[in-house]
Amino acid sequence: MALIPQRIHSVRLATMVGEGYGLIDDGVVVFDAEQIIYAGAAADEPSHLRSIASMDGKGGLVTPGLIDCHTHLVWAGSRADEFAKRLHGVSYADIAAQGGGIAATVRATRAASEKQLIAATLPRLQALLREGVTTVEIKSGYGLSLEHERKQLRAARTLAAQLPVSVRTTLLAAHAVPPEFKDNADGYIDTVVEQIIPQLANEGLADAVDAFCESVGFSTAQTERVFQVAQQAGLPVKLHAEQLSNQHGSALAARYQALSCDHLEYLDEAGVQAMAAAGTVAVLLPGAFYFLRETKQPPVDLLREHGVPIAVSTDANPGTSPILSLQLMLQMAATMFRLTPEECLRGVTVNAAKALGLTDRGQLKPGLRADICLWNIDDPASLTYQFGTNPLVACWYQGERR
Amino acid sequence: MALIPQRIHSVRLATMVGEGYGLIDDGVVVFDAEQIIYAGAAADEPSHLRSIASMDGKGGLVTPGLIDCHTHLVWAGSRADEFAKRLHGVSYADIAAQGGGIAATVRATRAASEKQLIAATLPRLQALLREGVTTVEIKSGYGLSLEHERKQLRAARTLAAQLPVSVRTTLLAAHAVPPEFKDNADGYIDTVVEQIIPQLANEGLADAVDAFCESVGFSTAQTERVFQVAQQAGLPVKLHAEQLSNQHGSALAARYQALSCDHLEYLDEAGVQAMAAAGTVAVLLPGAFYFLRETKQPPVDLLREHGVPIAVSTDANPGTSPILSLQLMLQMAATMFRLTPEECLRGVTVNAAKALGLTDRGQLKPGLRADICLWNIDDPASLTYQFGTNPLVACWYQGERR
Ligand SMILES: [Zn+2]
Ligand SMILES: [Zn+2]
Repeated sequence: MALIPQRIHSVRLATMVGEGYGLIDDGVVVFDAEQIIYAGAAADEPSHLRSIASMDGKGGLVTPGLIDCHTHLVWAGSRADEFAKRLHGVSYADIAAQGGGIAATVRATRAASEKQLIAATLPRLQALLREGVTTVEIKSGYGLSLEHERKQLRAARTLAAQLPVSVRTTLLAAHAVPPEFKDNADGYIDTVVEQIIPQLANEGLADAVDAFCESVGFSTAQTERVFQVAQQAGLPVKLHAEQLSNQHGSALAARYQALSCDHLEYLDEAGVQAMAAAGTVAVLLPGAFYFLRETKQPPVDLLREHGVPIAVSTDANPGTSPILSLQLMLQMAATMFRLTPEECLRGVTVNAAKALGLTDRGQLKPGLRADICLWNIDDPASLTYQFGTNPLVACWYQGERR
Repeated sequence: MALIPQRIHSVRLATMVGEGYGLIDDGVVVFDAEQIIYAGAAADEPSHLRSIASMDGKGGLVTPGLIDCHTHLVWAGSRADEFAKRLHGVSYADIAAQGGGIAATVRATRAASEKQLIAATLPRLQALLREGVTTVEIKSGYGLSLEHERKQLRAARTLAAQLPVSVRTTLLAAHAVPPEFKDNADGYIDTVVEQIIPQLANEGLADAVDAFCESVGFSTAQTERVFQVAQQAGLPVKLHAEQLSNQHGSALAARYQALSCDHLEYLDEAGVQAMAAAGTVAVLLPGAFYFLRETKQPPVDLLREHGVPIAVSTDANPGTSPILSLQLMLQMAATMFRLTPEECLRGVTVNAAKALGLTDRGQLKPGLRADICLWNIDDPASLTYQFGTNPLVACWYQGERR
């Protein structure tokens, strides 16, 4: 790709630098395939940039490309039938007894070929791209064996090669206990730490390691074994923590300098403090909160008070958040969690980048990747306020309009 | 338009005839610009239809075109700034004192030209069309004077002429008391019943009349004056009823054979019975419920028990439901109100048609309008379960693919 610089003028910039939006009125962005060259006020633009072929942004808003930092996007099968059964009054226990729930997704995902998984995931990923997502995290966790976790992560890597989007993969082998280890969670964790993590880390398929620490998931002791092995493999960790109860998983994760702890409805102040001290990002997932009809609010005020960066993500998955829309998460994070529009937008840009350990994106700043969205709005709060009209005018991925 | 028949084969049909989805496996639909000619099992298809040029539906699902039966789509201005203020802790009272709330939308709508209103509405309407909406109701109610209510309704009619969608207009002059009648709601209702309704009915701009009956809106006595005049003008009525409190507006509306009562969170059994007896449709509006963080559930079980038809709609409006997505309303009606996927889909097809007094659409049945959606799903519950991927493959409006 030749490094031909491009320029957008007559726009407002939400640079996400500093506090809030980092707004610059009457701004200009100049970038090429490698990086942003200039993002600032038109008045301060170096004169040699002004002659670059330029696009008129017509008073629109420019933001960094959006980052969806927590998804389980690669799965096979549908749980629509199960959803319908629940609404017809069948209990979750009965559905589980009939092989439903996550077991159904694990079965379908194991039965699918890598090619089939890619085909199933493609429309989900495209839905995110249509809304301005330029980086997406994708977790494994429906394979639950070396072979099938590998297949999920490979599918994610292949999708990244096929579409103009950056994919960060997270190995979530410790998502659930697979049927062959029924009533033997420790035995499964043996396999995870002795085999799955070392092997897939070695194959370069995972950018991070995650676990589901919960009364219905894995204990903190089991989670710690996962973290230790991740650390040995040189991979950063993340954690599904305090979603349904307070297991103090966040404090544990903080001890391992976790990039993020995610969900967090039941997080207490000690956990918040631990995260603050470790620089761990709080990833809030309003889609799951909504879909599960949760009423316990994540401790947003405590997170603010202790300066924990807040990210917002879809948690896209077939069981608890079948919602493929990061823009809707902005709306929901504001409406349900009372995040401000500034916090919402930071949550899918600068703080989402931080939740993935990425320092090369999430802001409009010289030297960062040229992942850029142009929106047909003037007030950045519109992105959080109104849903459905998708004001995305154009999106550049690594400097190329897609 | 020449009446060239078209045919879609290898599809499942959700005909919405009878109970539930009215499913037909291995179905065929044949239609022309005027009407549906055949919608049934391939095996039962008259042989003379089988030679018609046919599209392979590839196992997808065919439904009637979707109907959004309650919107306030025509408005000017944005309330994003107000939304942001609320999230930064400014009280609703302070915002109202600063001229915010519905007053801000009335001001902006009055200040806009008809052309500007059309331009502002266009992307909202297009968002609905992208999701398979073929009929949309649009209310006035931000003009609040003869001149400006007329302008809103004319904008709606013009949009109908410009886009492949059927628009039903509803005159909602009794939406709020305009500033020039401050503390004189009765005086404003005088103008509504003496001038606005008769005149705009006479101009053929309104297909129905609506009012906002609420402690913070109009009393039942004021509402009844509106209904009487609507009746004299030969227009059917609808009512925003029991949204924030039980004013017994639904029983009043039922006495006037209202097409629908809408919102209904605070509806009691007497109101349900009155609606059942009058054949009035209950229009549930999960977007407003969600946006206002309402916790009082509409009486879904009572509606079922008494056989009141349930419709579902966006209530798209800048103040309490800035959500331009009927597909999201299916998801929300199921998740928040526990409607079954069958009820959700009936709510945006056959029962939404009924809520608009329309008998020529909302089902796949010979003789009805050829407003048809083809979806890339096999289980109709998928439409309600997963949001964001928009499985719409193709949509025909009056027999023409749009
Ligand atoms: Zn998750
Ligand atoms: Zn309304």
